[in-house]
Formats: sequence, C-alpha cells, structure tokens
Amino acid sequence: MEERTELNILGEFGLIHRIASQQQFSHARTVKGIGDDAAVSKGNTDYQLVSTELMVEGVHFDLSYVPLKHLGYKLIVAGISDILAMNGLPTQVTVSIALSNRFSVEAVDELYAGILTACEDYEVELVGGDTTTSRSGLVLSVTALGTVEKDQIAYRRGASVNDIICVSGDLGGAYLGLQILEREKQVFLEAPESQPILAGHEYVLQRQLKPEARLDIIKQLRELNIVPTSMIDVSDGLASELRHLAAESGLGVRIFEEQIPIHQKAYLAATELKLGPFTAALNGGEDYELLFTIRQEDYQKILDQTTDISFIGFISADPTEALLITKQNEAIPLTAQGWEKQGE
Amino acid sequence: MEERTELNILGEFGLIHRIASQQQFSHARTVKGIGDDAAVSKGNTDYQLVSTELMVEGVHFDLSYVPLKHLGYKLIVAGISDILAMNGLPTQVTVSIALSNRFSVEAVDELYAGILTACEDYEVELVGGDTTTSRSGLVLSVTALGTVEKDQIAYRRGASVNDIICVSGDLGGAYLGLQILEREKQVFLEAPESQPILAGHEYVLQRQLKPEARLDIIKQLRELNIVPTSMIDVSDGLASELRHLAAESGLGVRIFEEQIPIHQKAYLAATELKLGPFTAALNGGEDYELLFTIRQEDYQKILDQTTDISFIGFISADPTEALLITKQNEAIPLTAQGWEKQGE
Repeated sequence: MEERTELNILGEFGLIHRIASQQQFSHARTVKGIGDDAAVSKGNTDYQLVSTELMVEGVHFDLSYVPLKHLGYKLIVAGISDILAMNGLPTQVTVSIALSNRFSVEAVDELYAGILTACEDYEVELVGGDTTTSRSGLVLSVTALGTVEKDQIAYRRGASVNDIICVSGDLGGAYLGLQILEREKQVFLEAPESQPILAGHEYVLQRQLKPEARLDIIKQLRELNIVPTSMIDVSDGLASELRHLAAESGLGVRIFEEQIPIHQKAYLAATELKLGPFTAALNGGEDYELLFTIRQEDYQKILDQTTDISFIGFISADPTEALLITKQNEAIPLTAQGWEKQGE
Repeated sequence: MEERTELNILGEFGLIHRIASQQQFSHARTVKGIGDDAAVSKGNTDYQLVSTELMVEGVHFDLSYVPLKHLGYKLIVAGISDILAMNGLPTQVTVSIALSNRFSVEAVDELYAGILTACEDYEVELVGGDTTTSRSGLVLSVTALGTVEKDQIAYRRGASVNDIICVSGDLGGAYLGLQILEREKQVFLEAPESQPILAGHEYVLQRQLKPEARLDIIKQLRELNIVPTSMIDVSDGLASELRHLAAESGLGVRIFEEQIPIHQKAYLAATELKLGPFTAALNGGEDYELLFTIRQEDYQKILDQTTDISFIGFISADPTEALLITKQNEAIPLTAQGWEKQGE
C-alpha cells in the first residue's frame, strides 16, 4: 500500500524543515535561505529582477491528470521564464503553497521533488516561502529573483522599425497537449475502464506537463554578444505577446504564417483533434518560449551560430498594424482567430 | 446604487493598468516596476532581503467582516513585517491575487486602495504581481523585498546568554479583536436584524483589521546604534516566536508574566469574552510586533530613549528551558496553555 503521512503530523515548521533538508543546490548570492523571516542575498551592482506568478487548481491545472512532480517543475519554469524574458539570469525563488488536508506529506514531497528538480536544472535556489491551509483547492505562488547587467537588460519596449522578430523552439505544443489530456479525461469520465490513448503524443504532453524555460537561449545570446532590443516570454500565446511588444515599443508587427515554428508532433495532434495548428501556435500559450527582436545586423550571427531560433517577421512603423501574412499571401489582423480551417 | 463593474470588462491587462495607474509612490531603487515580465531594481552592496506570505479566504480572513481595504493594508503589513524582522528596510512588494467573478472592479479597487495606502505609509513600492481567476475564494500572495547593511542584519539566531528579550507595542489585541468579530458574526447569523456591539472595542478591532508594521522601531534602533542580537516578528504568537528564537540560538528563554505588554482595551475585551488576556498575548498572533534580544549594555539606551519597547525576560543557558514566570512566581513551561483562569 502506498505510504500516506498526514500533514498535521509534521506541522508547518516540520514541513518547512523537510523541504529545506531536501534541497541540494545553493546559490553563491544566498547568505541565508529558508528558515528566517526573509531570505538574504548579497547585493552587487547589477539590476535585481523580481517576478511573481500564481497557479490555481481548477484554473491553471487539473490534478486529475497533472502529476504533482510535474506541477512543481512547471511552477518554477513559469517563474524563472519571466526573469529570462528580461534577458536576466535567475538566481533564487520563493514558493508559497496553500493546500487542504486531502494532500498527504507524500503528495507534498512529490510537488517539492518537482520544484527542487527544476531548481537544480536551472541553478536557482529555493530560499523561502509560506505554507498554509486551503479550504478548497491547491494554490501555488512562485516569486523568482534574478540579475542582469545594466547594459544587457531587455524590456518589452525597445524595438525599432525593421528589427527582426525571433522566437525560440516551437509553439502550440503545450496547448495541444492540454487538449489531448482533456479529451482523455472526458473519455475516462464516460468510461472509467478505458485506457487513455496517449501514445504518439509524448512530445505535446511533455510540452504541457513539463515545459522548459529557455535559459539556454539566454546563454547563447550572451555568447554571441547579442542583446535583444525587446523581449517577452510566450506564456499567453504568440499573438498576445506580439501585441505586447508592439504596443510597448509604439510600433507595428508583421509575421509570416510559414515562418511560425510548429513541431511535426503538434501537427499530428492538431489533425487528430481537428484543431488548426497555427491557431494553437498563435493563441495557445504556456509554451514558455522566448519572443524577442534583434537588430538587422545580428541576423546573420543567429542564423549561423544557433539552431533553435526562428525568424518569424519584423517590426513595422505603423503602430496600428499587427498582421499575419498567410501562406496564401493574405494579410490578416493578428487579433482575428480561426482563419484556419479546422484540421488543416 | 453602488457602482459595479464586471471584472471581465477590464480584462487582466486592463486591471493591471488600472492598478499601476493608481500608485503614487515610487522607490529610488526601482528602475522598472509594474508592466514588464519582472520588476527591475538597482543593486548595491547591501544584503537583499525577500519574504513571501500567502493569505487565503476562509483561513486567514473572513470577508463577512473584513473590509477589503483593510485586508489589502494588512497584506502589505504582513509582508514587510518579515523584512523588518531582519532589521531590514522594506523597499518593494509584489502582490498576486486569485479572485472569482463575484468580485467587481470596485471591490478590487478597494483591495488595492488598502494595498497602496500601506505602500505609501511604509514607503515601499508595488512593483509587480499576477492576477488570475479563482474557482472559489480570494487568495492573496505578497512578496516583500528589502535591504539591510551587512553589519545591521538580525537573524533569528544570534542571541547570547543574558541578552534581554524585548518586544514592541502590546500583544494579544489582534486575537481578541478577532474574537469580538467572530462573536458578532454569530449573533448576526442567529439574528440578522441585530446590530453588532463593537463600541468600546475599537482598539482591538483595529489591531485585528488594520495592524501596523513596526518600521518606527527599526528606525529608533538605528538611531540608537543598536543592532538586535536576534529578532523575529510576532505573527504566530509570543510563545511560538520565543521558542523559535531560543531554538535558533541554541539557548533557553525566561519571560515574566507581569512584563508582558497588554493594552487596557485588550484586558477589557478579554474580560467581556471570558478569555485570559495573557493567553491571548502568548498564543494569539497577528500582532506584527517585533520580538528581539539586545545586549545588557544596550538596555539603558532603550529604557531612556524609547517609549514603546518592553523588557519581558532574558536568554538563559539551558536550551531545554522555555519558562514563563507567573505573577505568583511559579515557573510554567511556555508550551503550556491555559494556566490562566478564564476571565482573570
């Protein structure tokens, strides 16, 4: 039988101690991590970055198909992705959780196993947090801290006309993975004896359940001495993030449908689900890729020396312009959804 | 009729813009506050502090008697109190909220009116956050940032034998205020036409609903050139916090019942509620006073030059000792509750 320890046996301080004792990684900036009123870091002359995210059960995740370990990992990814989106390097995180008694100590251990795995993978330290009771669902809050040299920072604003719009990795996979999980949940609810059909969809499922933050891209850009002129992470969907970049820079955007990076497994999932893969890429969200603009003169360096960055369009002078140029060479406003025929 | 604007009319970005536009205060360290992926601060050579708190409806607050404006104020107080407890000065906060559609824009405005009032009172800047949907109750998360010169930091550990234990303000009021509110809620539930009897209890109600963080005490200690040898804020109750200080320093504590500061209005409320005022002071929590230890040689300076600090005991050598010396000169373990006769 699976072990189950009631949370009240540990108590809050026992739980904090248990979490603290599991952490392997410590950051050079940390003077004092978990266990006092506040975490203490050594200052320096860089900019300090801070960002915070809230994840709520029933809104951001469904525990009927999201393993707690993956949820913890994704929480950290979501937090530090915002630091990366400033061209910063994440250093530390705090995590607060509100949970009900239906969670056992083993369940909390699973959640923190994911949190701490992500902390190790991204070399950030968990330096504090708060745990409390919830009357209803699980609520997770992450605050990520980071640093960036003053001349390296990339805001959402800052793009110039003719800057090239770049995006890392591929898009839409996380959304399509979610649709696969939702489909199988419905099948299970209607026929609990049936087995979920997930085979072949491992890629999009991983994009949904265990996304990665693109620390590697930030490191590559630094090695190439490229500072993006503007940057944001793709958490709400490409179309929405593009509109943010354009609005903050007071300029327009033009992107090309055929340049949008979509994984072949995302095409497969979209076909099976009768969804448009480009719609998923534009509006899906949760991919945690980096969307950024570069000067024309940096184009060749990225083309020659990186492999996982796509050039999807450019910044235009007209701030009212936010256009998608389709494969048929039609110009469609980026606010419009559903121009794709389903299953295309 | 009271104005009610549905939240979905604004949308998340509209809400963020609305909040950002209401903020008057900006901190000298802030390079970029609300409106990008992460907040940006200028670094320096001090220690950076970070602390986070979660407040959950039905666990930490009851909206049937807590005004949203006060709740927002208290959230910030709770957050920065942890920075003060490191002998630090708070600089910035981020606030995340999960809320359901039962909240109108006006309700969110009330909440942020309290948040921003506290930010102005304590000279901290709201630099970011996250707003999201909740399927059930309201959840609030605050992350407070601060700084402290390296030679000024006060940890929970660090006390020495014979250090004097000090506490600011008075204790138990917040707990007794809560009991008054709970009593009146029960009366209301049983007889909705009756008016709540709150007159005479303004002090303890304010302690519960609109507590203050003791930034003034931190400033006083700096003016006197006193660095506490250990410090914690009283959020869970004096007895619990004393055990933390003792355990972290590997020493014991002895405090004297007659030295515990209790406001006369707290005595009054306790009598009416048939509760022990010292029990409330020891175990009540949420007073957000500062509990700290000082060297013997700093005693006279505090005695002569401050007015709102009480000397309640001293640090002893035996780490197994955590004693309360009663007015009758009995020594009672601090873990014991309810030695007081009710209504004493």
